[in-house]
Amino acid sequence: MHQPIPADIDIARHASMLPIGEIAARLGIPDSALEPHGRVKAKISLDLYRGLRAGPQGKLVLVTAITPTPAGEGKTTTTIGLTDALARLGKKAMLCIREPSLGPCFGIKGGAAGGGYAQVVPMEDINLHFTGDFHAIGVAHNLLSAVIDNHLASGNALDIDPARVVWRRVVDMNDRALRQIVVGLGGSANGAPRETGYDITVASEVMAVFCLSESIHELKERLGRMIVAYTRDRRPVLASQLKVHGAMAALLKDAIKPNLVQTLENNPALVHGGPFANIAHGCNSLIATRMALGLADYVVTEAGFGADLGAEKFLDIMCRQSGLVPDAVVLVATVRALKMHGGVAKADLGRPDAEAVRRGLPNLLKHLENIQAWGLPVVVAVNHFTADTPEETAAIEEACAALGVKAVRADHWARGGEGALDLAGALLELTGGPRPALAFTYPGELPLWEKVRTVARRIYGASDIKGDAKVLKAFADLEAAGFGHLPVCLAKTQYSFSTDPQLRGRPEGFTLAVRDVRVSAGAGFVVVLTGDIMTMPGLPKVPAAELIDIDEEGNITGLS
Amino acid sequence: MHQPIPADIDIARHASMLPIGEIAARLGIPDSALEPHGRVKAKISLDLYRGLRAGPQGKLVLVTAITPTPAGEGKTTTTIGLTDALARLGKKAMLCIREPSLGPCFGIKGGAAGGGYAQVVPMEDINLHFTGDFHAIGVAHNLLSAVIDNHLASGNALDIDPARVVWRRVVDMNDRALRQIVVGLGGSANGAPRETGYDITVASEVMAVFCLSESIHELKERLGRMIVAYTRDRRPVLASQLKVHGAMAALLKDAIKPNLVQTLENNPALVHGGPFANIAHGCNSLIATRMALGLADYVVTEAGFGADLGAEKFLDIMCRQSGLVPDAVVLVATVRALKMHGGVAKADLGRPDAEAVRRGLPNLLKHLENIQAWGLPVVVAVNHFTADTPEETAAIEEACAALGVKAVRADHWARGGEGALDLAGALLELTGGPRPALAFTYPGELPLWEKVRTVARRIYGASDIKGDAKVLKAFADLEAAGFGHLPVCLAKTQYSFSTDPQLRGRPEGFTLAVRDVRVSAGAGFVVVLTGDIMTMPGLPKVPAAELIDIDEEGNITGLS
Repeated sequence: MHQPIPADIDIARHASMLPIGEIAARLGIPDSALEPHGRVKAKISLDLYRGLRAGPQGKLVLVTAITPTPAGEGKTTTTIGLTDALARLGKKAMLCIREPSLGPCFGIKGGAAGGGYAQVVPMEDINLHFTGDFHAIGVAHNLLSAVIDNHLASGNALDIDPARVVWRRVVDMNDRALRQIVVGLGGSANGAPRETGYDITVASEVMAVFCLSESIHELKERLGRMIVAYTRDRRPVLASQLKVHGAMAALLKDAIKPNLVQTLENNPALVHGGPFANIAHGCNSLIATRMALGLADYVVTEAGFGADLGAEKFLDIMCRQSGLVPDAVVLVATVRALKMHGGVAKADLGRPDAEAVRRGLPNLLKHLENIQAWGLPVVVAVNHFTADTPEETAAIEEACAALGVKAVRADHWARGGEGALDLAGALLELTGGPRPALAFTYPGELPLWEKVRTVARRIYGASDIKGDAKVLKAFADLEAAGFGHLPVCLAKTQYSFSTDPQLRGRPEGFTLAVRDVRVSAGAGFVVVLTGDIMTMPGLPKVPAAELIDIDEEGNITGLS
Repeated sequence: MHQPIPADIDIARHASMLPIGEIAARLGIPDSALEPHGRVKAKISLDLYRGLRAGPQGKLVLVTAITPTPAGEGKTTTTIGLTDALARLGKKAMLCIREPSLGPCFGIKGGAAGGGYAQVVPMEDINLHFTGDFHAIGVAHNLLSAVIDNHLASGNALDIDPARVVWRRVVDMNDRALRQIVVGLGGSANGAPRETGYDITVASEVMAVFCLSESIHELKERLGRMIVAYTRDRRPVLASQLKVHGAMAALLKDAIKPNLVQTLENNPALVHGGPFANIAHGCNSLIATRMALGLADYVVTEAGFGADLGAEKFLDIMCRQSGLVPDAVVLVATVRALKMHGGVAKADLGRPDAEAVRRGLPNLLKHLENIQAWGLPVVVAVNHFTADTPEETAAIEEACAALGVKAVRADHWARGGEGALDLAGALLELTGGPRPALAFTYPGELPLWEKVRTVARRIYGASDIKGDAKVLKAFADLEAAGFGHLPVCLAKTQYSFSTDPQLRGRPEGFTLAVRDVRVSAGAGFVVVLTGDIMTMPGLPKVPAAELIDIDEEGNITGLS
């Protein structure tokens, strides 16, 4: 597909990394604020963070993508390549991305530290444990789980209904056998039997809370607000009533410090936090992004999945809560993915077919319309594959031009920052003016049900939404309980604007069925479920773990 | 009890720690071998380890204790105080201890980094995640668990009997509701329902394997040898047959590097690994101890529980496998604990009672006899409490003198290394000669059942052992399967030489009932169960977690 270049891990292993202290020094981070983790990773202290808030702030660039297909889009490689290109143009640039989840590394997916010549390194470390943040988040979550069952077994003073414990357990592993389990078997010394289950750590509300908190104080407050269960008379039970939100925050004391690493071209990267982009907001930690804005002139960050999910949540949840506003958006597309949106099967993607690209373009154009409706300047990055023809690329350029948007071919995967110089140039043009005025999709005071309808109509292009009486009652209950002012976080398949993953392109005339709703009171949003959302992945028949190995010198093979 | 001094965490927080690079430099560790984790913790590379094996080796001192009582003995504080005292006497001294488990910090027990003025620091970090080793071990363990259930759900080519999967899951948390669970509920997409459970991470065989391996190659080999299940026709299924022992080792690539920290008096400490001392051998990692022996003239380490469990396993398992031999043993006792062995209730321990001490002395003397039978020089450390009277201490000294053993009062808890100078002096005398000839409790070629009988009679003072037909058959099966040459690892209550925790002092004439036996084929020992061994602790009604908190500057309170 791409021209032949070495495997990601081979490129990464032969990277000439600078000592992390040198990367930090270039950013003006004092040595006292740096907590090295080995030679090429470091955490940055929150003291520095507090100081930076008062100083000048860089420009924020949000990288998002068209609706994902199995062809791949390359959002993370674009984030990295663009940062390297901005640095080549003399800008003080850095990037912020999410930490990879460990579980999927052993399943199908492989790592999440970029690829080709657009990677953050050390990729083995970033993909395997990194600085331990996700384990810390998992343990904080599971401490609360253990305390809930302990409370049930020790007199249940809060009158928790054992059948209405909504707080599950988490582990950073793809382990389908844990999706639904019964705990507390083996007699009363082990508590009472109760049905529950595990989610993967990135699905934990602790992860979302962690990524939205700007101080330890706020972290504790948000952790305390999380709803863990309901009483027999249906009153919510908060984590604070179990009195371990302080201990949970203590467990997160190091995790909350952003992680500094570097790109293959030795530019700084903060890799920190990583909530799901369906049941949560899907961005790296707010602390990391804000810290970067205080350190660099240009900060490139990315949102999860396609722009309908990730960018919408980035803007309507994260920016709303924090006051951040991106200065520009990069929408990543590929010729191959557009062909799939145009109806071509994966096996046939190698054949030149500008007409198929044109048929797929409505997907891209709808995303562009959405971004423009948010009031944000946008450029399209056409992430280049060797087999792409000039006619195919031209089809994209023409269609974008009709909306006044530039589409720029980018070749960072094969050529690093040099391959994204045009994209960086276009971005600099785009961000020359004053900060744009961000128009949220909906106002905060709109009722929850209307918020969902607005997102579905304006962002997804649905005709309307629907829900049965039980769902409508659940919305009404949340309004009555005082959660009506919160933004909504729609969990929907990432493979379509609609809820049907087979409907590529720009589906129209569909009605979005709302299946369930619940509140993430600590994170500060209402999660709206529109289908079965998998919060605990499984392993494939032959897991990637079988290929992973290590030699006596500590070199890892088989990690992709 | 002790004279009033500040709380452990207050002493620890006001410690003046040296940069870890300075501690390392004093040991001659080159900068290139040091992987800092923040300012005051570091991992040491295995490259250095390999180089040190060829150089001069220091003297090894094993700290163990009389049979534990609720009065407390102070084994870890003695290990730390003795190291600080040896340094004050001009010796290049360091210590090796186990990493604390996170789970118990939130239950009753508090931390495990020493206490008073004999601590290793930073104690908050060491007690909370530290460098992430236990999480890495837990994930490596749970990867194998997920792969087993995945194998069962994907055709079960190995013909594993779902009812005979012996590999459970682990978490570093006290969570009694997880002791016995059913996984795989919710339909065939989640696998098939199966009964299993969780242990605390320190009980994982991965932990034992990790602590006994001297290279990545050996680690992989041992992981591959672990028995995870049995087929329908009762053949063992090894981890290597599931092909993820390489990935498990990759997950442990950083964990396996020993962690360097310091005592309050700025002496070096390796804190690394920590298996249980009942179902496993209970010592810090072999790599850490060997590395220390290559770096220092005196290395002080400790074994778990009392000498009947911890020291016996240190010698008969770890020393047998590795060829290590301690140059001397320190047996820690307190006046208070001996009074409890002499029949005094905990509430009455403050009252002077030399007669009760004398009544409790047979416990101490039996441990001394055992140590002498192993052929090892020994000194008794009488860990001092303020209320102890000279008569009480004298009673101990006299009884020890009759066995030719010196008993030395040590006051390191209140005074740091200065309080253990006499103990250090006695130790230097003891280690002046050539390395002693270690006499194992039993020869490797003795049948397993006879090994158990020998430990029970010689070390515990039992008249005999017994087991029902099922147990005897299990021993015969292990012999037939080729495990007869392995050492035995007896899991017994730590509160008595016998299996009855109420029997303090030196019980005699009892028969040790063997309840079950199983093999830890990767760790290389046969685990012999003599009672219910708790491998997943619970939380108390009011967990210690409720007291733990953190402020905006990251200061932690409530951790003890």
